[in-house]
Amino acid sequence: MRASGNPPQTKPLINPAMQVLRCITCHARYPLGDMPEGCPACAAAGHPSSLEAVYDAQVLDFAPKSGSYTWGHWQPYLDGVSLGEGATPCIPVPALAALADVASVWIKNEGANPTGSHKDRMSAQAVSRALDMGAREVVLASSGNAAVSAAAYCAAAGLDCEVATYQALPAVFDAALRHYGARRVVCDSGHARWAHVRRRVREEGAFALTNYSVPAVGSPVFGVEGYRAVALEWVAQGCRPDHVIVPTARGDLLWGIYSALRDLVALGHLPKLPRLWAVEPFPRLSRVLAGASQQADFAGTTLQFSTAGSTVTAQQVFAVRRSGGGAVVVDDAAARDGTGHLAAAGFWVELCAGAGLAAAQRLRADGRIDRTEAVMLMLTARGDRDPGQA
Amino acid sequence: MRASGNPPQTKPLINPAMQVLRCITCHARYPLGDMPEGCPACAAAGHPSSLEAVYDAQVLDFAPKSGSYTWGHWQPYLDGVSLGEGATPCIPVPALAALADVASVWIKNEGANPTGSHKDRMSAQAVSRALDMGAREVVLASSGNAAVSAAAYCAAAGLDCEVATYQALPAVFDAALRHYGARRVVCDSGHARWAHVRRRVREEGAFALTNYSVPAVGSPVFGVEGYRAVALEWVAQGCRPDHVIVPTARGDLLWGIYSALRDLVALGHLPKLPRLWAVEPFPRLSRVLAGASQQADFAGTTLQFSTAGSTVTAQQVFAVRRSGGGAVVVDDAAARDGTGHLAAAGFWVELCAGAGLAAAQRLRADGRIDRTEAVMLMLTARGDRDPGQA
Ligand SMILES: [Zn+2]
Ligand SMILES: [Zn+2]
Repeated sequence: MRASGNPPQTKPLINPAMQVLRCITCHARYPLGDMPEGCPACAAAGHPSSLEAVYDAQVLDFAPKSGSYTWGHWQPYLDGVSLGEGATPCIPVPALAALADVASVWIKNEGANPTGSHKDRMSAQAVSRALDMGAREVVLASSGNAAVSAAAYCAAAGLDCEVATYQALPAVFDAALRHYGARRVVCDSGHARWAHVRRRVREEGAFALTNYSVPAVGSPVFGVEGYRAVALEWVAQGCRPDHVIVPTARGDLLWGIYSALRDLVALGHLPKLPRLWAVEPFPRLSRVLAGASQQADFAGTTLQFSTAGSTVTAQQVFAVRRSGGGAVVVDDAAARDGTGHLAAAGFWVELCAGAGLAAAQRLRADGRIDRTEAVMLMLTARGDRDPGQA
Repeated sequence: MRASGNPPQTKPLINPAMQVLRCITCHARYPLGDMPEGCPACAAAGHPSSLEAVYDAQVLDFAPKSGSYTWGHWQPYLDGVSLGEGATPCIPVPALAALADVASVWIKNEGANPTGSHKDRMSAQAVSRALDMGAREVVLASSGNAAVSAAAYCAAAGLDCEVATYQALPAVFDAALRHYGARRVVCDSGHARWAHVRRRVREEGAFALTNYSVPAVGSPVFGVEGYRAVALEWVAQGCRPDHVIVPTARGDLLWGIYSALRDLVALGHLPKLPRLWAVEPFPRLSRVLAGASQQADFAGTTLQFSTAGSTVTAQQVFAVRRSGGGAVVVDDAAARDGTGHLAAAGFWVELCAGAGLAAAQRLRADGRIDRTEAVMLMLTARGDRDPGQA
């Protein structure tokens, strides 16, 4: 339970240039509203799909504003709940470029966000949405970084937060949830977590922060749009990668990066789209790209807890296909080699972020990345509370 | 041992406008060089004192440059080893202002630095110095955030790092040192740690990152100057606190903030110096301000491990006296109340940072802070690896 009912820091200010929601698969348009199950038409057809926001192109100038909501005009909320997320370091690391035998390796260190992961980008926008809609309670399914992030932003917003987790939640995450005053509900499987969230949303009007549909869609659009700033930042910082490597579960971050880069290219702010590569701990997206049904269940076990899960979403398929990228499977042993090399360069990251470096080496070895090219690694979260790392 | 001998990212580029070193006590000037024991004249007189860098005032313009070394012209190195430190969030938190009954409370969240604490500011400059001087090995005494930070920056720089710690080092810090490839030497007391570092520096030419003198001085000048950017950033961000509250052990951060603000006032970039308040877990500085000898040993126990220690330095005395501030003692129970309130506002911080909020409430209650004033809290490090928090 929360210790106090804090007033929100800032009243959410919706982006007036956000016009409608649009299905990323069938392109049906919907009025602005909360549709956590994605596109109804696609769901009825048996292949659930995410929605994205459509903005008036005229506001998508590329002059960053100041403040935490620097890229608010590219996102649903111009201002709102903030713990100071974003503006994370984006730096070249010559030692890693030498290791991967490429022209340059850049890291985008999302572990420098307030709660230590990229999830803070989503939480800022999504919790602002919940507050703006008069929600009293936010629910989500997570056993890690998303839970800690949501708990912190709900605390800042004065909203109750309920997290559906597993019994085996690592102690440091449990401590974080207690400190932030979030309520923890223990479930015995991933599908049980989603069933719990679904019931709370459908029957009790709670505000969902993550997916609860089966087959899975991405997280609700007002949160996923928060990831657009990641790519906007690195482009503004002058970084022009040829390849972007993203540890991926259901592809929220991957889609946010893709959609921002796509818009930058369309508007003439960027000459070409880099190739986006989804890194997964066992074959899921790889199998879909090879012909398997996207709605299938792809079981597998891994210590890469941030990218575990058995589902594939439309958004991750589109992000890699439309950018000319693909999927790379990196097992835990190779991921651990990756975290070792990153730590030796000064970055201690969660295991799946280490898999990103291993993926770059793999792509270079088989020629899909050229020696003359620039590679961006997404360091999705810090390593010091990863049970696979400590 | 380090896993690999990485090449440094960037060759350190010394600030040509840094002219001499100057004793903060007797104002003796010394040519630029490494003097980890501080001012020889003051040490010979029995009261060791820190040195500070003197810069050509003409370069201290207040137009921030871009990049990680944004404030390099205010510091010893214009460029050097970097993991993307700095540019941490500085935001007002109305819920905390209401709690403390003041006009505004701002937080400067140093936990958003790459290794999770303000120490990264010091490590970037000091490890650049070590690299520039051709050092092969860096040594320091720390059992916490400074150790993790130094280990990461030494990894990035390709330097060996040796940390003198206690047996009871929390597991997460030990894991971090192992990942970054630092060598750990276990000592059985604070004075034993300093003796170890002293021997390694004096007899074996290692490069010291922290104090090893008894009585204590601050950390070596090339590191402490790295903290100047903290205050420069918040002034550039438009924040004008009347009071700045800093959890303090030996006062490196406090001095860095003071010296930058002092220079800003002297150069006309800031109308007045805010009052600086050192927060301590048991009476040390308080006793010195009340007349005790600064060279005495002030024993005490606390869970606020980042601000533990039994010594008082000249730099902390000067920072609070010259700014019209003082010292505030906050015990562990009150500090824990502070971390609870901060977590309820979305910030999970180390215990001594919670003490900062308790100190603000104390200062307000006894009238040293007025209801109409603005208060800046330094959130020195994240809470999720603090053994007093998890
Ligand atoms: Zn559709
Ligand atoms: Zn002196």
